[in-house]
Amino acid sequence: MNIAVAQSGGPTVAINASLVGVFKQAALDTEIDKIYGSLNGIEGIINQNLVELNELIKSDDDLELIKTTPSTVLGSCRYKMPAPESDPAVYEKIIDCFKKYNIGAFFYIGGNDSMDTTDKLSKYTMQNGIDIKVIGIPKTIDNDLCFTDHTPGFGSAAKYLATTLQEIVRDSAVYDLKSVTVVEVMGRHAGWLTASSAVLHANGETAPHLIYLPESEFSAEKFINDVKAQLEIRNSVIVAVSEGIKLDNASYRSGKVDNFGHEYLSGIGKLLENLITEKIGCKVRSIELNVMQRCSSHLCSKTDIDEAVLIGESGVKAAMQGQTGKMMVFKRVSNNPYKIEIDSVEASLVANAEKVFPKEWICADGTNVTDDALEYFLPLINGEIKIKTQNGLPVHFKINK
Amino acid sequence: MNIAVAQSGGPTVAINASLVGVFKQAALDTEIDKIYGSLNGIEGIINQNLVELNELIKSDDDLELIKTTPSTVLGSCRYKMPAPESDPAVYEKIIDCFKKYNIGAFFYIGGNDSMDTTDKLSKYTMQNGIDIKVIGIPKTIDNDLCFTDHTPGFGSAAKYLATTLQEIVRDSAVYDLKSVTVVEVMGRHAGWLTASSAVLHANGETAPHLIYLPESEFSAEKFINDVKAQLEIRNSVIVAVSEGIKLDNASYRSGKVDNFGHEYLSGIGKLLENLITEKIGCKVRSIELNVMQRCSSHLCSKTDIDEAVLIGESGVKAAMQGQTGKMMVFKRVSNNPYKIEIDSVEASLVANAEKVFPKEWICADGTNVTDDALEYFLPLINGEIKIKTQNGLPVHFKINK
Repeated sequence: MNIAVAQSGGPTVAINASLVGVFKQAALDTEIDKIYGSLNGIEGIINQNLVELNELIKSDDDLELIKTTPSTVLGSCRYKMPAPESDPAVYEKIIDCFKKYNIGAFFYIGGNDSMDTTDKLSKYTMQNGIDIKVIGIPKTIDNDLCFTDHTPGFGSAAKYLATTLQEIVRDSAVYDLKSVTVVEVMGRHAGWLTASSAVLHANGETAPHLIYLPESEFSAEKFINDVKAQLEIRNSVIVAVSEGIKLDNASYRSGKVDNFGHEYLSGIGKLLENLITEKIGCKVRSIELNVMQRCSSHLCSKTDIDEAVLIGESGVKAAMQGQTGKMMVFKRVSNNPYKIEIDSVEASLVANAEKVFPKEWICADGTNVTDDALEYFLPLINGEIKIKTQNGLPVHFKINK
Repeated sequence: MNIAVAQSGGPTVAINASLVGVFKQAALDTEIDKIYGSLNGIEGIINQNLVELNELIKSDDDLELIKTTPSTVLGSCRYKMPAPESDPAVYEKIIDCFKKYNIGAFFYIGGNDSMDTTDKLSKYTMQNGIDIKVIGIPKTIDNDLCFTDHTPGFGSAAKYLATTLQEIVRDSAVYDLKSVTVVEVMGRHAGWLTASSAVLHANGETAPHLIYLPESEFSAEKFINDVKAQLEIRNSVIVAVSEGIKLDNASYRSGKVDNFGHEYLSGIGKLLENLITEKIGCKVRSIELNVMQRCSSHLCSKTDIDEAVLIGESGVKAAMQGQTGKMMVFKRVSNNPYKIEIDSVEASLVANAEKVFPKEWICADGTNVTDDALEYFLPLINGEIKIKTQNGLPVHFKINK
């Protein structure tokens, strides 16, 4: 039999490493013949737009390059899977493709929307007596998937954020004057990534001095008072703020929504910058870390990349053991030494749910996180990978789609 | 005798490497006793706010850390040196400090405003028969200093830009739809850094597909036509635009100016994003690379850092040979193999002047640069330095000011 793998949702630095994991384990398995890549997520299955990965990936060197190539080498989609009863034709197209290419297992690397697809598709195949295993491999920089200790992609995003923030700390401290720097971090509803900026405290930095998460109430008045109090004790105040905080004045919202009804957020940093200018009047700068948070593979976490490969491999093993409709998860065994195990849960439990940052890890005044949170974060950003370069620039793996 | 060194102007990734160069050469020179660091540029001399670097820098490991610590370990300033006749007291304070600390040579690491200070101060000492040598060491990510092939700090900024842009290229290509990504790059009047993004072409990338520099006329109408033409031939169009382009509609200018009368620019990326939304209507995103362009030392160019050390060392040699009122410069001997020599020019020639990107290196349609430009840029981003890490994060050198 053959297998197919696809990538979905927003890019991360580790999503290709999970593709490598799927590929490596499938290549080892004598029951598996061809390994197909579906272009642009499930849309590649629906439209029979597949590539033969065995043809495109020619060496271990290729696999190493793919591991540290950011974003999705197979492309992605934001396709919302309809219910079978509302659009049976889509399911028929998918099954047609699976049958035509003799695909016995399908691996979907993605976030909670992709787990919704994994769940629907596995239920459809089971209910119709079609023997195709469907397994979800988690990824998201938001770290907001339930039932897994953390998600592949998050550790590298956190490492990028902390490294960059530390450099911004140095940059912001050059002049002998009072200033505030507001750094806007991705995370619609969950503050994991913003909270992870506190790892700098473990490195002897006082910054970030104020951290604001969507999980806490946000008041513009308290914010200004927090900043003023910090300016009393230091020259350069560094603020990490989640794009998803709920400002008591809702005028910052763009109102635009994507296919899943998620609201596009942007500009909270700029809004807080303007607020500081208006209410305090000191030097202030806002910095939006933008897509660099999810694509800066030159700064990936070795732990994250290694685990992303591992969870991809485990997905193939689970399917070959007969599992379907599952998402692979990490379970943390211990922090010192850091140790994880891999298990699986029903994809339906993960689909369309979000794991927010724990209230008990937020300090009382709502502007910092606890030592327990640091212990959780630190192992995830550990280790560096030497990136292959050419002309002074990282080499990326590309397929001609 | 003793010497003093100070850092001025906007931070770069290499400005501390030049400090290391000054320190290393001075430490080798038996005629030099103490090495003072002036805090916050020339203001540290005026206010007698000095630190003893021999006390603070204890080992070669410290020097290695300083080399790759971003921004200025001694702090910076944007102090505009008055003419001696308009404010003699400032000069007297400076000379008092030099005499009190027995300082026989002063090294000012900075941009063209710092070279103005270097020039004024050296002329004042010569005219008043005071034997203190004043030497300027160049730095700026803008690469806009005259009489030097390039400036320390530029190569690392260019390496950051190209590496990040290449990752943004991958990130922007994930969905199967038409999109435009506008990346805003620093550079008030000179397009060197924006132009350097074209090094990606030497790495097999088609991006950036459109490059706009302040040195070319910019027309919003032509811009929209350029983007439309690119969207005809590809899905994901990447635009690199200098913050300093002169849009035919001037409404994007903030109107704010700094101490030197330079206008603060920002928001050209956002403005072009809105223009594309209005005139084309496809998916569009603007990304401002912000201060990360000048402080991302984790991604420094080894060539840049090595040269920054070298030019700092050369500055000390020049002063000890009796030179004053000079700025040290690079002369490029050859591209293949890449080879430079170091010389010096009158700081007055560099002060308050700007070297713009050559017209003959801009392609006819104004949206790309020539192969000659690539040959110029490529050696400057070459080589990586392994950064010391702790807890998964780079270690920075800090002095308690």
